[in-house]
Amino acid sequence: MKPIYFDNSATTPLDRRVLAGMTPYLTKEFGNSGSIHSVGQRALAAVDGARDKTADFLNCDPQEIIFTAGATESNNLAIQGVVNYFQKRGTKIHLITSKIEHPSVLEVMKEMEKRGVAVSYANVDNSGVVKTTEIARLIRPETVLISVMYANNEVGSIQPIEEIASLIKTEKARRKTKDLALYFHVDAVQAVNYLNCDVQKLGTDFLTMSGHKIYGPKGIGALFVRRGVKIEPLYFGGHQEYALRPGTLNVAGIVGLGKAVELVEKERSVAVLKLKKIKRAIMGALSKIPEARFNGDAERQLPNIINVSFRRAEGESILMMLDMAGIAVSTGSACSSGSLEPSHVLSAMRIKPEWSHGSVRISLGRCNSEAEVDYFIKKLKAVILKLRSMAP
Amino acid sequence: MKPIYFDNSATTPLDRRVLAGMTPYLTKEFGNSGSIHSVGQRALAAVDGARDKTADFLNCDPQEIIFTAGATESNNLAIQGVVNYFQKRGTKIHLITSKIEHPSVLEVMKEMEKRGVAVSYANVDNSGVVKTTEIARLIRPETVLISVMYANNEVGSIQPIEEIASLIKTEKARRKTKDLALYFHVDAVQAVNYLNCDVQKLGTDFLTMSGHKIYGPKGIGALFVRRGVKIEPLYFGGHQEYALRPGTLNVAGIVGLGKAVELVEKERSVAVLKLKKIKRAIMGALSKIPEARFNGDAERQLPNIINVSFRRAEGESILMMLDMAGIAVSTGSACSSGSLEPSHVLSAMRIKPEWSHGSVRISLGRCNSEAEVDYFIKKLKAVILKLRSMAP
Repeated sequence: MKPIYFDNSATTPLDRRVLAGMTPYLTKEFGNSGSIHSVGQRALAAVDGARDKTADFLNCDPQEIIFTAGATESNNLAIQGVVNYFQKRGTKIHLITSKIEHPSVLEVMKEMEKRGVAVSYANVDNSGVVKTTEIARLIRPETVLISVMYANNEVGSIQPIEEIASLIKTEKARRKTKDLALYFHVDAVQAVNYLNCDVQKLGTDFLTMSGHKIYGPKGIGALFVRRGVKIEPLYFGGHQEYALRPGTLNVAGIVGLGKAVELVEKERSVAVLKLKKIKRAIMGALSKIPEARFNGDAERQLPNIINVSFRRAEGESILMMLDMAGIAVSTGSACSSGSLEPSHVLSAMRIKPEWSHGSVRISLGRCNSEAEVDYFIKKLKAVILKLRSMAP
Repeated sequence: MKPIYFDNSATTPLDRRVLAGMTPYLTKEFGNSGSIHSVGQRALAAVDGARDKTADFLNCDPQEIIFTAGATESNNLAIQGVVNYFQKRGTKIHLITSKIEHPSVLEVMKEMEKRGVAVSYANVDNSGVVKTTEIARLIRPETVLISVMYANNEVGSIQPIEEIASLIKTEKARRKTKDLALYFHVDAVQAVNYLNCDVQKLGTDFLTMSGHKIYGPKGIGALFVRRGVKIEPLYFGGHQEYALRPGTLNVAGIVGLGKAVELVEKERSVAVLKLKKIKRAIMGALSKIPEARFNGDAERQLPNIINVSFRRAEGESILMMLDMAGIAVSTGSACSSGSLEPSHVLSAMRIKPEWSHGSVRISLGRCNSEAEVDYFIKKLKAVILKLRSMAP
C-alpha cells in the first residue's frame, strides 16, 4: 500500500503544474524584479501576472495584494500594522478576535495586550462556530479591528463572515467619531481551497492567504489590504510592495502562489464533490467505531476536514501508530511539544478532556482518493483496539 | 553574443546544484517540518541538515541560526528585536550605524528614531570605509547596538569589522552598568561569497545573510543570533525557530540556503582568483576611457564589484543603453524610482554630483568569464561616446 497523506491542513504537496510554472524563475529567469534592466523587468512581469491572478481570485485590485513570506507574517502585518498605526497616534484602541483562532492570530493578540491594547476573545458554540451576537456584545466605541478566521484549522468549522461583516457595517454607520476605523480581518488560510473568497462579497478589509495550504510553495503568502486602510509596515527597507513589505521579492514563490490560486478556482467545484464523497465514506465507517464522536458539525464544516475523538485512546499515540502503517494524520490538539494541554479549539467548544485527548484530525486533499478509505479504516480500527486493550 | 549579466550584487542566478538539492523538497518530500509523523520528520531532518551547514559556515552553534524570509527581515529582526527588548523595559538606549548601510538597515534606524530611540550615523572616508575612530567617538553609555555592514553593496568597500568588534570589547569591559548590553550586528549580505564569515573571529553578535545573493533561492535568509543575546521576535505565532521567527518553515528554501553556503565555502578561493582577473581586465580597459574614475579603493574592495563614474554621461542612461545591447549592470545611485537624488553611499564618500550621477556598478559573479570583457568594453565605450555626443 502506498503511503496515505491525510494531513492536508498542515501542508499540501506542491502541485506539479505549480512547480512547472515556477521553474523558469528557478532557472534562467533569475532576475531581481526591482532591477531596471530587462532581466529584472521580465521577473517583474511575472510578479505582476501572479498579482493579477491573486487579485482576480479575491475580486480586488492588484494594488491591494501584498505578498508576504506566509500566513503568519500576513496575520501579523494586519494586526500589528493596525495597532502600530493607532498606537503611534496615541489613540486608545480595542480589538476583538475569537477563542479558536490560529496561534498566528491568538499569540499576536496576547502580545498586543502586553503592549497595552485591550483585546476581547469571542466564545464559540459547541460546533466551533463564532456567534455573531457574541461579536456584537463585545464591540466598544474604540474597537478598531475584528479578526475572525474563515474556517477553523482543527475542526474545519466555517465562520459567519458575511454576517459579521454586516454587523460591522451597521456599527460603522452608527459611530459618531467618523475617523475611528473599524476593520475586519479574515484569516482565510484553510478556506481558500473550498470557499468563495470574494472580498467584496465577504466584506473584509484584510484577508490572509498561504501558498503551501493550496498546493503552492512554502514561504509565500499574501495579505489583501483594502485601499485606504490605515496600516504600518512590520519592517522597513526598500519600496517593494508599496513600502508595506520591503525586501527582494520571492519571484518564484509569488509565481507559484498565482498559479496555485488559478488552479483552485478552476477545479474547486469538482474538488469539493470528490472530497465530500471521501469524507462521507470515512465518516460512515468511523461512526461504527464504539466510543467515537465527531467534533464540529458536518453541515457547517470544510469538505476536507474530519475531527474525531476516541475515548480511551490518546490522539498522539493514534498518530504515531498510524504513521508506522504509512498513514499521516494529525492530532486535533496542538500539544505537539509534549505538553498535555488539550487543544484550545476543542476546549472552546466545551469538549471534555476525556474526549479531546483522543482527538485526531483527518484532512483530505487533491491527492487523496476513495480507494484509500478501506485501508485507512482497517488500520485505524486496529490501532484503536490495540490502544484500548493496553489502556489501564 | 549571449547576454552578459554583470548585476550579481542585485541578485545571482540560482546555481543548478542548489536547485538539485532543493528539488526533492519541491516534489515528493513536501512535509511540514512541524508535523510529528514521518512525512514531517523527513522535512525536519532536511532543515536540520541545512542549519548545520549554515552554522558550520559561520562557526557557530546550529541553535544560533534563525531562518528568515531574507536579509531585510534579518536586519529588521536584529535591530527592531533589540530595540523592542529594551523599550519594553523602559531603558533609554542609543544605536550606532554608518551612513552607507543598505536601506534595510538605514530605514529601520530612521523608524527607530521616530519611536524615540537616539541613533548616530558614522561617517566614512573617501573610499567608503567606516572609520573605527568615528565609531569610538559616537559610543555613549547607553549605546546597545552597533550595526555596520561587512561590505558595501554599491562600491564593495570592505569594513573593518574585527577592529570595530575589538573596540566594542574594550568598551564593554570599561562599562560600569554591567547589565546594559552592547551588541554588534553585521549585515554580511554582499560579503558572504568572498570574505571569511567566522563569527567568532569577527566578534559579532548578529550576522545577516541572504540566499539569493549567494546563488541560492530568493525569499530565504538567515540571522545569526549569539546565544544569550536579548532580543524580541518581530512577529508572533507558533514555536518555530526557537519562537524567534514563527511560521511554517520554507523547507526547500532553507535546504537551498544550506547548499548555497556549502558551495561558497568549497569554491571561494578559486572564485576569488577568477573574479580578480576579470575585474583587473575590466578596470584596465575602463581606465583608458577619458573622464572616468573609480569609486572606492580596489585594495579594500570585494573582488566582484567595480563602481565607476563617467562625467557627462548619466548612469541610468548608460544602464538602459547597455541593456539594449544585452548587458545588465546597475547604477551606483539608488534612484530607481526616477528620483534624481544621488546615491547616499557616493554622497557619504563626498563624491561630487557631476561624478555620482554618471556612476555604474558592475558586479561580477560565478557565471561570468574573461571572454565577456571585450564585448562589454566595446559596447560601453560606444554608449559613453554616444551619450556624450548628445549631451548639451
